[in-house]
Amino acid sequence: MTTMKILTEAELRRIVPLDLEAIACVEEAFHALASRAVAMPPILRLDIPEHRGEVDVKTAYVPGLDGFAIKISPGFFDNPKIGLPSTNGLMVLFSTKTGLVQAVLLDNGYLTDVRTAAAGAVAARHLSRPDASVAAIFGAGMQAKLQLEALRLVRPIREARIWARDAGKAEATAAELTVKLGFEVRAETDGKAAVGGADVIVTTTPSETPILKAEWLRPGQHVTAMGSDAEHKNEIEPAVITGADLYVADSLKQTRRLGELHHAIAAGVIGADDPFPELGEIVAGKKEGRTGRDQITVADLTGTGIQDTAIAALALARAGAAGAGTTFES
Amino acid sequence: MTTMKILTEAELRRIVPLDLEAIACVEEAFHALASRAVAMPPILRLDIPEHRGEVDVKTAYVPGLDGFAIKISPGFFDNPKIGLPSTNGLMVLFSTKTGLVQAVLLDNGYLTDVRTAAAGAVAARHLSRPDASVAAIFGAGMQAKLQLEALRLVRPIREARIWARDAGKAEATAAELTVKLGFEVRAETDGKAAVGGADVIVTTTPSETPILKAEWLRPGQHVTAMGSDAEHKNEIEPAVITGADLYVADSLKQTRRLGELHHAIAAGVIGADDPFPELGEIVAGKKEGRTGRDQITVADLTGTGIQDTAIAALALARAGAAGAGTTFES
Repeated sequence: MTTMKILTEAELRRIVPLDLEAIACVEEAFHALASRAVAMPPILRLDIPEHRGEVDVKTAYVPGLDGFAIKISPGFFDNPKIGLPSTNGLMVLFSTKTGLVQAVLLDNGYLTDVRTAAAGAVAARHLSRPDASVAAIFGAGMQAKLQLEALRLVRPIREARIWARDAGKAEATAAELTVKLGFEVRAETDGKAAVGGADVIVTTTPSETPILKAEWLRPGQHVTAMGSDAEHKNEIEPAVITGADLYVADSLKQTRRLGELHHAIAAGVIGADDPFPELGEIVAGKKEGRTGRDQITVADLTGTGIQDTAIAALALARAGAAGAGTTFES
Repeated sequence: MTTMKILTEAELRRIVPLDLEAIACVEEAFHALASRAVAMPPILRLDIPEHRGEVDVKTAYVPGLDGFAIKISPGFFDNPKIGLPSTNGLMVLFSTKTGLVQAVLLDNGYLTDVRTAAAGAVAARHLSRPDASVAAIFGAGMQAKLQLEALRLVRPIREARIWARDAGKAEATAAELTVKLGFEVRAETDGKAAVGGADVIVTTTPSETPILKAEWLRPGQHVTAMGSDAEHKNEIEPAVITGADLYVADSLKQTRRLGELHHAIAAGVIGADDPFPELGEIVAGKKEGRTGRDQITVADLTGTGIQDTAIAALALARAGAAGAGTTFES
């Protein structure tokens, strides 16, 4: 018999908002990735083509943490036709000492949204200009919103532009964010215009052909590409990477296979084994982040199991403090 | 919001006993593996050496089934020192149409015990002599007991021998099984004597050096080796495989990497690509099982995700029929 907590999405939304502590917890996870013997096995992937479904399972063990999470993320792309969200899933947190279940987090993907946005903020904190005040967001979905919300927690953002393939969705998201964040967020129908004068550019789309062109970029800009988490996704031109002063991966092993780097390698403009720093190495001070105001920097984020372990541990700690969740014995 | 069932180990033990229906459901799963476009990705494996822990994640999608399971199996081998079982874990059953969680089965490994024993019975049904009546079991743990219980559901077993490294444990298990099964089960301190005259031999140990010698085997015997589910485990001499008339894998991809076959390949007595039938192909009638009374047959079982999906689906169906479990919304 073991005692565990079961938490619903509503409870998790209440106790784990996207805040500076969530960003700090993900930042610590990246630090650990570069400084401890973290075990992060390759992602388990199951495809269910009959229903346009795919399932990813991620995990990571961080020595020193009490728990490790295993996250199961289904994405079923016909769901919206029947009024359901495409992405769902849950995380299970286990004791690193005994393997017993500590918590089942029925988050329907919410904690992934938070830890993904938090990683964007960590990248911006280490790679964008400290006084970055203008953001350009590509995409108008959940991550478009959350990336901007996370960004303004770490940089003095006072203006943002939203570009999306669906101009109406860009307008709606811009209007919603203007009200929520208290500064001007406007929709742009032209990608180049959205990028012009922006300090931070975040791409959050599931695009399979580049939506960000290298020729649009100017010295001093930082790009975070976080939409590509599978081989066929591709948001930025390979020339964005070759033209940048600094390219940073969340996990080089993953970006070489799944991220934007993968497409630059496939295009033959980057070598399959070319070395690049990882975000954790920069967080840990082992490699340099931005070293000058005029550098162009690129962060390629594919999402790592260590972020899941970090956010799940935060959720359980907060649940304990708040007395939230249902206690279950089995 | 989705509605799911959460079932505890106690509930699952009540509604999913090791019975002929459990064996039939695992047999159907093997049939599907050979006849449908089943997706069964490689096992995700996480090692936590500091606490002698390991975690396996398995899954399989069977076209036509309503659900697919993802099973998380932690094994923490220092647990017994603090009074906890080594193995634990849970299964999550998802809808194949939407990816939504249908059930969380907090079974602490119980359903794995059942589906593993059921696979042994499926192997015996197709590979042992129909009138097999004497069984030799190597090992005295949970699977030793369950393999014998499953075996007597498909073969007219009237006598069994237990061999285990720990003779006291073999005695205790033999005494317990004699009472439970109603026929003589005796402990044997000599492996060769245990095997002599047995129709079916099942090895269920975590041994890393062979405990079953080829020279002990006689025409007509069937061997099921089910203890090896990792590279370093090895219960039977490679000569058992080369000397057998028929070697059958649960999943050839897995037994070449994790099973007894892996050690025969490593020893250079079997080629890495040598073809062998899989249990599902025999169940589906695509390959022949035992064709003569004097054949020596070997089944190499490493455990497959499709068995988990099958037993989890059975558990949810039974829970529905019995009104068991807690309904949860998230």
